[in-house]
Amino acid sequence: MDNQNECHKESWVHYVSLPPPCLNDNTADVDRLTAQLKSLLNVTFLDMDLSLMALLPRVLRKANFNVRCILFGYDHRYHLLDVQPSNDCLPVFGLAIDLGTTRVVLRLLDLCKHNIITEITIDNPQCEIAPDVLARIHYTDQPGGLEHLQKLIIDAINQQIQNICTTNRINSKQILCMSIAGNTCMTHLFLGFPPQAIIREPYIPVINRQMIFPAITLGLHINPLARIFVFPNIGSYFGGDLVSGILALDMHHQTDTSIMVDVGTNAEVVLGNKDWMIACAGAAGPALESGVSKIGMTAGPGAIERIKQDHQLLSWQTIDKKKPVGICGSGFIDLAAVLFQSGMLDIRGKFVPDQCQDRLLIIDDIIHFLVVPADLSATGKNLTISQVDIDSLIRSKAAMYTILTTITQSVGIDLTDVSVFYVAGTFGAFIDPSSAITIGMIPDLPRKRYQSVGNTSIEGASRVLLSRKDIESVSDIQKHITYMELNVNQDFMNRFSAAKFLPHTDTRLFPSVKVPLS
Amino acid sequence: MDNQNECHKESWVHYVSLPPPCLNDNTADVDRLTAQLKSLLNVTFLDMDLSLMALLPRVLRKANFNVRCILFGYDHRYHLLDVQPSNDCLPVFGLAIDLGTTRVVLRLLDLCKHNIITEITIDNPQCEIAPDVLARIHYTDQPGGLEHLQKLIIDAINQQIQNICTTNRINSKQILCMSIAGNTCMTHLFLGFPPQAIIREPYIPVINRQMIFPAITLGLHINPLARIFVFPNIGSYFGGDLVSGILALDMHHQTDTSIMVDVGTNAEVVLGNKDWMIACAGAAGPALESGVSKIGMTAGPGAIERIKQDHQLLSWQTIDKKKPVGICGSGFIDLAAVLFQSGMLDIRGKFVPDQCQDRLLIIDDIIHFLVVPADLSATGKNLTISQVDIDSLIRSKAAMYTILTTITQSVGIDLTDVSVFYVAGTFGAFIDPSSAITIGMIPDLPRKRYQSVGNTSIEGASRVLLSRKDIESVSDIQKHITYMELNVNQDFMNRFSAAKFLPHTDTRLFPSVKVPLS
Repeated sequence: MDNQNECHKESWVHYVSLPPPCLNDNTADVDRLTAQLKSLLNVTFLDMDLSLMALLPRVLRKANFNVRCILFGYDHRYHLLDVQPSNDCLPVFGLAIDLGTTRVVLRLLDLCKHNIITEITIDNPQCEIAPDVLARIHYTDQPGGLEHLQKLIIDAINQQIQNICTTNRINSKQILCMSIAGNTCMTHLFLGFPPQAIIREPYIPVINRQMIFPAITLGLHINPLARIFVFPNIGSYFGGDLVSGILALDMHHQTDTSIMVDVGTNAEVVLGNKDWMIACAGAAGPALESGVSKIGMTAGPGAIERIKQDHQLLSWQTIDKKKPVGICGSGFIDLAAVLFQSGMLDIRGKFVPDQCQDRLLIIDDIIHFLVVPADLSATGKNLTISQVDIDSLIRSKAAMYTILTTITQSVGIDLTDVSVFYVAGTFGAFIDPSSAITIGMIPDLPRKRYQSVGNTSIEGASRVLLSRKDIESVSDIQKHITYMELNVNQDFMNRFSAAKFLPHTDTRLFPSVKVPLS
Repeated sequence: MDNQNECHKESWVHYVSLPPPCLNDNTADVDRLTAQLKSLLNVTFLDMDLSLMALLPRVLRKANFNVRCILFGYDHRYHLLDVQPSNDCLPVFGLAIDLGTTRVVLRLLDLCKHNIITEITIDNPQCEIAPDVLARIHYTDQPGGLEHLQKLIIDAINQQIQNICTTNRINSKQILCMSIAGNTCMTHLFLGFPPQAIIREPYIPVINRQMIFPAITLGLHINPLARIFVFPNIGSYFGGDLVSGILALDMHHQTDTSIMVDVGTNAEVVLGNKDWMIACAGAAGPALESGVSKIGMTAGPGAIERIKQDHQLLSWQTIDKKKPVGICGSGFIDLAAVLFQSGMLDIRGKFVPDQCQDRLLIIDDIIHFLVVPADLSATGKNLTISQVDIDSLIRSKAAMYTILTTITQSVGIDLTDVSVFYVAGTFGAFIDPSSAITIGMIPDLPRKRYQSVGNTSIEGASRVLLSRKDIESVSDIQKHITYMELNVNQDFMNRFSAAKFLPHTDTRLFPSVKVPLS
């Protein structure tokens, strides 16, 4: 197949000049157009909705049988979405959506020019009902709960579509495709699928494979015939957002073995290359998200995102350079690394009073470490971290490291064999790999192997709108991945116990980490 | 493939026992069910609507993963329409519809027991707007005209569905399939497709190939996921009702060559066997429908349907044995045959005054033949046939015979080579082949080769509901048929002129017809 043709097939828009019907060629309008398109695209199935068929005779004759066809499809199955006279040059738009538990990103793309028109981020309105996945699933146990959550997200998306179209002077009918990448629960709620079995053993989604259906099915206010592409899940805890991420990173095309980690309350990990891929997910504990400690918070203005030791003093950097109001995940990991390296935390993660000296306070019978004194904080109060907070972080980092060793060992490779270590998500954008290595959360690889990759979910969702090959890749990736249930057995617990030290009981695993003499 | 399996595949209902999910087999619900069904049925594509997916987790768990699946499909493409616990034994119904220009026949079938529950016939409500195809197409030129005609037929079908369901105590959601066989125009109006190009050279339908879509698309009040199967057309004047007829008669499986003729204002003809099939349609003139003569009428109570000569007198038989009110097509043909055989019509179809004697009347300067004197008629007036009526009949019969010779000669066979001659439609149910042969309307074949086959359209529509093989046959038939445009050229006109005599200028073609000496 030559490149010209290949490029042609990739396109959303195809120009067709049909021989007008005559007494010797009285093929019907729909049959005439689809036969030509099938032959042009070498496809077996070409679907067309009744409402479009009804418009066809007028369009064909108005256009003197020279038309511009908008098609969605992949493999050998295509859908004809619109037919216009060839001299109409209306743009064709697609909307990529990263459907996060907390935030929803909508990105409008021009599918002909291959550029981004606009991108907006909104709060997921379901947060007002229930902040996290678990709470939302419990909410669906109520009568009408699922319908309510679904309506909230559909309405919010429709509202944003209206805003985007008004701002950019676009007719919403020109949006002819939408791709949705979300975790398994968010995908279920979007589709109106009961999510209860996701969180109950044996953890069964309603569907894993990708779905494609017309916009009208869910009342999405774009062209009613526009196709909605929903990324497939791999399992209850490994969703379409990660499949989208794998696509965005091209992990499925790489010869070298790479790993992608997305850390939140759950750690989701995928390991592999073009020949094989294995995924798992496990509870990493809440230490790396907001709400864990009294000063813990998600990344936002005034959050301490970076901590360094400056001689005997701690220096910090906050988001937007505001006075500190709290500490977010990346800052917390920095803090633990600094405290460990300076001998203020021992290898068990316990505060060493001799080293901490007057920075240790007792509050409510629990030892706290003073991070920011009251006079320097935005709140006018001391910002402290308790031993309980540190213990929680240690469990989270141990879980993370255990998951990483479990998945690599399951395929008989060593963590040091991983050529690229992608850290995805908001968390990944801020974490300092050196600090994470110092506390033994992630393996002691050369720093340059770590790549912070940001929101790969919206990138992958954009890619399927721009390339049919990438749509085909999605189902390949989904079929390709082996999903490993993390069995929390004795072996896992042994590894977990060994990882609960700083950086690890086996310090040979972390040769670059200088373990202070106690 | 063994018979057991074959029989199984033919069924609408499939029982499936799924292994319940466990930690070692956490396949999602939809994926679990579709994988099992695909393997069971050996199909490539199995579609399932979002709304059914949403119900699946509850149904599967309630049924302990033993379910009864209702499927529509053919070839390797199936649609899952419903999933119920295996111990539910709800019947599955299908509705076959013959969508005629004048009458609509609805037949409800039990798809498991393969029996007819009820059949009703209603007037096509579009008749009130416009009586025939041409008038209806012109009506669609008005703004909203097409939508109005579509709404009339959809509403009428929905009203009858409600009546049928109430009378038979059926939940309309249990109707899971509907098949529609109509002529090209009626099919277009049902689908909301603009029909204008059908009647304008070069006579182009919107679509010819068959269509399958969910009931919800057209707002049909059966199960919203039920599949609507619309028979394909062959061309503007050869519709799905005839494809359905070919299926019902099994013409596409026969080794011998047969012919099917459906006569109305148009004569539609298909000729062929299992290896080839050719179709054409031509204007036969209005003589064989109502409204042609002052006493002409469609078959109804009091219509003279049969006329014989009883010595010098005419004897007639009316529908329902009522006093005669008019004469319908079959009676008219009998009359012409009797008048010709008795010498009252000459070979040109002109009344012979010497033979007709006092039965000839002059009304408005035109010669009329007295069929029923006033004292014997239901109207209290003379029922007469004029020379103009006879001339019209002669043109119709000549057109019919010319079409038949043209189609047979186009494939190089003789009319006498036709092993079975099917006469379809209401007209076919009443016509006396001997009379039609006597006037040279149909070829002089042994009488036993003629078969009156009634409403084959509703029979074919029923068959696709009962057998997947027959659904597959429909698209085979459609692809198989060559549609011949009847070119009204000099050759055709020569044949037509020769056929305008009784029975024909070449009397050798009608050896069994005794031509009276003039």
